[in-house]
Amino acid sequence: MIKVLGVEHIGIALDKNEQLSKVLKDVFNLEHIGSEIIEEQGVNTDIFNVSNTKIELLESISKDSPISKYISKYGKGMHHIALIVEDINVAIEHLVSNNIVMIDEKPKVGVEGYKIAFIHPNSTPGLLIEICQK
Amino acid sequence: MIKVLGVEHIGIALDKNEQLSKVLKDVFNLEHIGSEIIEEQGVNTDIFNVSNTKIELLESISKDSPISKYISKYGKGMHHIALIVEDINVAIEHLVSNNIVMIDEKPKVGVEGYKIAFIHPNSTPGLLIEICQK
Repeated sequence: MIKVLGVEHIGIALDKNEQLSKVLKDVFNLEHIGSEIIEEQGVNTDIFNVSNTKIELLESISKDSPISKYISKYGKGMHHIALIVEDINVAIEHLVSNNIVMIDEKPKVGVEGYKIAFIHPNSTPGLLIEICQK
Repeated sequence: MIKVLGVEHIGIALDKNEQLSKVLKDVFNLEHIGSEIIEEQGVNTDIFNVSNTKIELLESISKDSPISKYISKYGKGMHHIALIVEDINVAIEHLVSNNIVMIDEKPKVGVEGYKIAFIHPNSTPGLLIEICQK
């Protein structure tokens, strides 16, 4: 069984993080937790604390990254939500047994060392969902 | 000064809420808080509890609703985040004085009776932001 504990972050796909990052920091006074490059996914991230969850800005640093492909197809904008689950392996098993198609059938390592797995967007039409476990 | 208290909800623009609603309820076991029609905005909403925040599915019930126009232009998908602020009037004043353009310069009434105001997306490129106060 899956146990969803909350939304870990909301991911935004951007060409450049700079402009939105500046507004979130200087106008909305959100705390900038940090920046991290995830080479494997070809992205540079900027993470902001919004008290109950986080906003993750995703800037593509490689032409064939998933973010770059997404922007070519849909333009920049809100990309995915990450749901924290109690046990990611149990969650994947539960989802697959309910005919949900996983992009990642085994967890990989994401930002801040979380175990993460993406669900195929066709299984949750209109909302790309990442599941993650700290 | 603006004081952001958290993300109240994440809004998803859909032609029909049914398919994603069913998956969130039956597969992810999220609590369905309720459905509400907001005539003024031409939408039918389905709201889910995700512990620390909410997911709001927005189905257009009018051809000239903002959601309908959004879907025509960008397709269905993640639409906006709503940030809870301590005082919405103070927040609007702060944003305007920082050259942020408001769609709603005065708060209007949204789902669950919240006072809400949308920011023009050109001011926060890549992320449509609603601010709200309970």
